[in-house]
Amino acid sequence: MLFHVRMDVNIPADMPADVANEIKAREKAYSQELQRSGKWRHIWRVVGEYANYSIFDVESNAELHDILAALPLFPYMKITVTPLCRHPSSVRDNDA
Amino acid sequence: MLFHVRMDVNIPADMPADVANEIKAREKAYSQELQRSGKWRHIWRVVGEYANYSIFDVESNAELHDILAALPLFPYMKITVTPLCRHPSSVRDNDA
Amino acid sequence: MLFHVRMDVNIPADMPADVANEIKAREKAYSQELQRSGKWRHIWRVVGEYANYSIFDVESNAELHDILAALPLFPYMKITVTPLCRHPSSVRDNDA
Amino acid sequence: MLFHVRMDVNIPADMPADVANEIKAREKAYSQELQRSGKWRHIWRVVGEYANYSIFDVESNAELHDILAALPLFPYMKITVTPLCRHPSSVRDNDA
Amino acid sequence: MLFHVRMDVNIPADMPADVANEIKAREKAYSQELQRSGKWRHIWRVVGEYANYSIFDVESNAELHDILAALPLFPYMKITVTPLCRHPSSVRDNDA
Amino acid sequence: MLFHVRMDVNIPADMPADVANEIKAREKAYSQELQRSGKWRHIWRVVGEYANYSIFDVESNAELHDILAALPLFPYMKITVTPLCRHPSSVRDNDA
Amino acid sequence: MLFHVRMDVNIPADMPADVANEIKAREKAYSQELQRSGKWRHIWRVVGEYANYSIFDVESNAELHDILAALPLFPYMKITVTPLCRHPSSVRDNDA
Amino acid sequence: MLFHVRMDVNIPADMPADVANEIKAREKAYSQELQRSGKWRHIWRVVGEYANYSIFDVESNAELHDILAALPLFPYMKITVTPLCRHPSSVRDNDA
Amino acid sequence: MLFHVRMDVNIPADMPADVANEIKAREKAYSQELQRSGKWRHIWRVVGEYANYSIFDVESNAELHDILAALPLFPYMKITVTPLCRHPSSVRDNDA
Amino acid sequence: MLFHVRMDVNIPADMPADVANEIKAREKAYSQELQRSGKWRHIWRVVGEYANYSIFDVESNAELHDILAALPLFPYMKITVTPLCRHPSSVRDNDA
Repeated sequence: MLFHVRMDVNIPADMPADVANEIKAREKAYSQELQRSGKWRHIWRVVGEYANYSIFDVESNAELHDILAALPLFPYMKITVTPLCRHPSSVRDNDA
Repeated sequence: MLFHVRMDVNIPADMPADVANEIKAREKAYSQELQRSGKWRHIWRVVGEYANYSIFDVESNAELHDILAALPLFPYMKITVTPLCRHPSSVRDNDA
Repeated sequence: MLFHVRMDVNIPADMPADVANEIKAREKAYSQELQRSGKWRHIWRVVGEYANYSIFDVESNAELHDILAALPLFPYMKITVTPLCRHPSSVRDNDA
Repeated sequence: MLFHVRMDVNIPADMPADVANEIKAREKAYSQELQRSGKWRHIWRVVGEYANYSIFDVESNAELHDILAALPLFPYMKITVTPLCRHPSSVRDNDA
Repeated sequence: MLFHVRMDVNIPADMPADVANEIKAREKAYSQELQRSGKWRHIWRVVGEYANYSIFDVESNAELHDILAALPLFPYMKITVTPLCRHPSSVRDNDA
Repeated sequence: MLFHVRMDVNIPADMPADVANEIKAREKAYSQELQRSGKWRHIWRVVGEYANYSIFDVESNAELHDILAALPLFPYMKITVTPLCRHPSSVRDNDA
Repeated sequence: MLFHVRMDVNIPADMPADVANEIKAREKAYSQELQRSGKWRHIWRVVGEYANYSIFDVESNAELHDILAALPLFPYMKITVTPLCRHPSSVRDNDA
Repeated sequence: MLFHVRMDVNIPADMPADVANEIKAREKAYSQELQRSGKWRHIWRVVGEYANYSIFDVESNAELHDILAALPLFPYMKITVTPLCRHPSSVRDNDA
Repeated sequence: MLFHVRMDVNIPADMPADVANEIKAREKAYSQELQRSGKWRHIWRVVGEYANYSIFDVESNAELHDILAALPLFPYMKITVTPLCRHPSSVRDNDA
Repeated sequence: MLFHVRMDVNIPADMPADVANEIKAREKAYSQELQRSGKWRHIWRVVGEYANYSIFDVESNAELHDILAALPLFPYMKITVTPLCRHPSSVRDNDA
């Protein structure tokens, strides 16, 4: 089951660089683990912004929330979730 | 080169059903041809709305505009285009 | 799996009254059938507006879209879907 | 008498963790007490956000305000209240 | 129990003048009857707009919805309802 | 001459409690004095928000600005003013 | 007493040209009469838009509403009124 | 050449009072000098807000930007500029 | 003197194709004449939208308004004008 | 390939002046180097705002993101990117 997610990151200006870097390193590792598992299907950078569009493939709303709430950057992000389903014109069987 | 596109369809209430159906049939054929060519990578239905999120893979801004402006439903859609690039955390080489 | 849905109805001013009434009658029957099946858990009128807040309990995003797109009033509604999950403070086991 | 309430929580980044945890623990206890009393009928987490949708069942506007203003997290929340009433298509007698 | 209501009127440009006048006459009579009964406490014109701010004093959300939905201009208005309660600084006992 | 005013209060999280309390006490006294004088006709709490809707009855725009700018909470409020006049359907002679 | 007013004109596309021209001619005559009387102090065209910013000098809110509601283009305009008062830095005695 | 300018002032809550007062004193002197020169034609206080509407009469866009960027309060203001021209209904030759 | 202009075109769905085409042909000729004269410095299509961003180089606000109001598509466009001036980092002497 | 970019700068009020100046000096040098290379075709100041409209000419979305993310002021800016293409009415061959 697919979900479209936009994440806008806003790290406080007064966070020390090493703290920020450590959080970002954990975020990257966590994201890549989820991508490899197939849960986080796509992640793209929005050009010119500290933001991404992502596609998640999960079993339930609850699983998606647990994944997102566990993001190391979660306290510093505005997240918007939109449920998706197969488009009747799609030629791809797995885009649903 | 990837672009994120949202399309919201708004067909006038007074368009005769057969005219609407003919336009939608052409839209579907056109969309599927572009999907098979690889230009229109993904199309998902937004749940509960006559709208889609799509990912296009084109050579240039101009190619994307030509594709979108040729959509049979183009006069009846609000389209929003966002340029994408590879996310530094992405594990997929072709998501760029 | 629960979803929060807001529906705002906007019937064109020039729709004949008997056409509108027939659509509304079908909408009501369809809604009540879904409520009795347990898919449409709650529906409340927003005071002063031709709008409702509803809670749906479905198996998947696709099922929800199919239900909503089949609403007789679907062409005349703006629908906004928000995925829900169990709140950690909830005392109700079935509110998830 | 039912009310639809959305709460968005925004705890200041510089609040010490133990202070935040103590407030959240009181919030949870207070919420569960109100849920058990029947005043706070439903609470759902919005997927991906530190926010909830809730349904309250109270005697009056004043009772609702007193309940909300006493929330331990009240100073850190944006709250939006919408009055509800029974929908004419509802099959549930107590959804009013 | 008090509610703050804003009504914005938007009569279609192609409604015949006599039809519009007949609706407005019924609206005025209905409004004045409710004002005299004490249900519709105040109505003020917003300067420069075809809109009003009103204060209603009703027993319940349902009563307010029934009153508003029965307005002859209801199909041509955007209505926004905000529940009110007594302000702790108010010196008026009946402003609640 | 009547004006509709909405005030949203936003006291900085780091203001010491005794400072805040002293400002609020002065605000309350000032508000009640103006209510008793007839200048501040009504004040209602917006349910669930640290906000009020008020009706002022003043001689001029300038008098209203002087009253509002002298509010002890003025530096911590967002204020929106809307000029009102008698509604042609009003049955109250003094609602103008 | 001064008010800042923005007017956005939106004449329906299907209004016959001679009807529109007759309304505009009356609007112009009415506006110029009010300007000469001193009630309508200023009127400026917003560059690139069918809109104006104006300054009115009236005795009361009610007088302003009567003037605006009598504009021949009133049914085709969106009007926004903002009350003004003398700025403490102003060097002009009559700008109040 | 005339421009309509709205300025919303937002001085940080933690700026020492004497610093703020010194900036405001310079702002006032600077504003009055420009008013006397004819460049800053009008300045009005928006009732209830720390904001003003102003009319500037300058030779060019560049001159206006230089004037605004030199305001002592410039770093603490949100400024919106709208170019104006003579309205065809205006009876004042110099309102252009 | 430079201005940034955004134009969004919205031709009514019921305008006959030959009428629309005739207007567009005149629009194109008019635009190209202004481009060749140097008044209309740039015009770019916004990808995926019936809209453009343009840069105008004119003597005054009034000249710009006269140019825009004479566009054959003017009645069918939403236009937003933003005054520009030379950026202190610009290396181009004529970008002002 | 051209892109329209708006940048709004918001430097924190508590950044020391010398730090801010050093960042701005690097920003200017970087911008001018990109302008001379032809990548950053135009930059204009928005009158009255700490903001600019710019036109970039790059090979790809990725190149644009790399350029923007490397701006010394990037952490303090809100950036909005809009892809452009040649307008069919344009008389300039290189505006694409």
